[in-house]
Amino acid sequence: MTAPGAAVLPSPGRHLSDPGTRAVLRVQNALLLSARRFLAEAGFVELLPPISGPVTDPGARGSKQVDIDYYGHRYKLMSSVILYKQAALRTFPKIFCVAPNIRLEPPETADTGRHLAEFHQLDVEVAGARRDEAVQLVEELVVHMVRETVADLTEQFALIDRDVRALTHLTQGAFHRMTHTEAVARLRENGHEQSLDAELDWAAEALLSAKADRPFFVTDYPKGSRGFYDRESRTEPGRLRSFDLIAPEGYGELCSGSERTHSYPEIIARMRETGENPKKYGWYLDLVREGIPRSSGFGIGIERLTRYVAGLDAVWQASAFPKLPGVVSP
Amino acid sequence: MTAPGAAVLPSPGRHLSDPGTRAVLRVQNALLLSARRFLAEAGFVELLPPISGPVTDPGARGSKQVDIDYYGHRYKLMSSVILYKQAALRTFPKIFCVAPNIRLEPPETADTGRHLAEFHQLDVEVAGARRDEAVQLVEELVVHMVRETVADLTEQFALIDRDVRALTHLTQGAFHRMTHTEAVARLRENGHEQSLDAELDWAAEALLSAKADRPFFVTDYPKGSRGFYDRESRTEPGRLRSFDLIAPEGYGELCSGSERTHSYPEIIARMRETGENPKKYGWYLDLVREGIPRSSGFGIGIERLTRYVAGLDAVWQASAFPKLPGVVSP
Repeated sequence: MTAPGAAVLPSPGRHLSDPGTRAVLRVQNALLLSARRFLAEAGFVELLPPISGPVTDPGARGSKQVDIDYYGHRYKLMSSVILYKQAALRTFPKIFCVAPNIRLEPPETADTGRHLAEFHQLDVEVAGARRDEAVQLVEELVVHMVRETVADLTEQFALIDRDVRALTHLTQGAFHRMTHTEAVARLRENGHEQSLDAELDWAAEALLSAKADRPFFVTDYPKGSRGFYDRESRTEPGRLRSFDLIAPEGYGELCSGSERTHSYPEIIARMRETGENPKKYGWYLDLVREGIPRSSGFGIGIERLTRYVAGLDAVWQASAFPKLPGVVSP
Repeated sequence: MTAPGAAVLPSPGRHLSDPGTRAVLRVQNALLLSARRFLAEAGFVELLPPISGPVTDPGARGSKQVDIDYYGHRYKLMSSVILYKQAALRTFPKIFCVAPNIRLEPPETADTGRHLAEFHQLDVEVAGARRDEAVQLVEELVVHMVRETVADLTEQFALIDRDVRALTHLTQGAFHRMTHTEAVARLRENGHEQSLDAELDWAAEALLSAKADRPFFVTDYPKGSRGFYDRESRTEPGRLRSFDLIAPEGYGELCSGSERTHSYPEIIARMRETGENPKKYGWYLDLVREGIPRSSGFGIGIERLTRYVAGLDAVWQASAFPKLPGVVSP
């Protein structure tokens, strides 16, 4: 099979021996070291994530989940560990994991520069937190990660020719926040057609991203654009208590999060609305019935954040063993 | 399907709310924090591991690999990231990752207390290192991890009723080393039949483990008991430059490692001997042909180490979302 991106990927040997790859993976390592320090200091416990299970996140739009035969049962590989994060709040009120995810994106996405079939998320969840507390936490966490990495890795940034002034700017001020409705208004002012009821498409995201000089949040997505675990607003029906963090310079989405649906009847209602069969979610619904705490949380795409911080053309450059959709590689 | 271990697993809600689980996961978290500090200080770079690929470690004896459909190609889930560790030495001379592995062990192993179908390894590899340098590194690493964790988590050890004196003893002296041949002689003295040409079976391992008062190494396994990547000795043909670290108190194997086969002709010869078809290993052999450094490395079973340090009856107690072989669970 030849996918659009096949031509762009160097051989594993060339990729792994490239001084650029070395610098980029050091940036990624520094970002994660810094995140772990920040989160440990803030009282978070890191958990080892599962990679398979009877169900996984149904909210990964446009991509295919991967089935495996688990002793005669059909299991899924994790497309995100959201359900497990909610469950683990029974053990600790503040948790995170560095979780591998697999999402078989359409082969056409191989040359977007933004898609990998296998990637990692820094997945964080906080019991009792409202949406805006999670937004605040992402902002502090990302500022901390970028500030430490820029300070520690001057040589690496020079080697890959990344002008860190764009990042210095980032660490000096609060990230702008706009609602999805505000984003739509801004897009229409710029002549971009965007429905109030749909997720921002890539052209819209790219337009907003290119105009920004530091990361910004888009909040309150319309219902239907996200999985059942994103909670619906009580004061604005049809709007979710969600947020995306979008990078400037045209790099697009870095992180997605929300306040979570946590009561049994609300979860069932949201599952039905999003076309999910509650019967599939046995262990999760059993746990919800026993009670899970209200919470908010998010997942930061590690390769995407690395790409933005390192100023890379494509996200595959931020992985030692990149898997482009549809492309056979290690 | 009902497996032998199904009866022993509590519900996810009960497991996750158990104060014992909370203490054990804190121990695990402390062990990993400590390992990351130690390895960063020693100049290691942490990499994000792949979870799928065209081939995986063929050396996981007795367990089944998991196939996935990757855009029409048959891929495997990682049973260990050994091949990727060797490849990544092209980028950094000292690397590690915390890698999820999946091995469908026979359902009969569900109640051994030692088997999980999904688990994590602290996977370390060092370019240029001889076997005995890797042995030394494991020893220092494990002593460091246990010493810091015991010092930091007094309350947690009290809560789970683990007498840390056994562990204090561990941190005070070098781990004993014996060759496989010496282990066989000792086993025979104790009336246990053990072949010189076979891996130690569980009864043998348990016997040696129960007699020890601190972890010990068994080195130089016979050929045939390990994958092609374990290098054969030049001075003792038929013996591998391998090592296992075995816990005392009957807990058994914690870690497995070796000096690696790294030259193309040796790898092809060892593949043929172990019944592997070189044709399956396209990307890996391409890379080997270009040249990979000589190296030694190891993988520490994180749940197994946690089990031993926390003094648990069974390894599933060291996982937030345990997957016992053959048992349906989250």
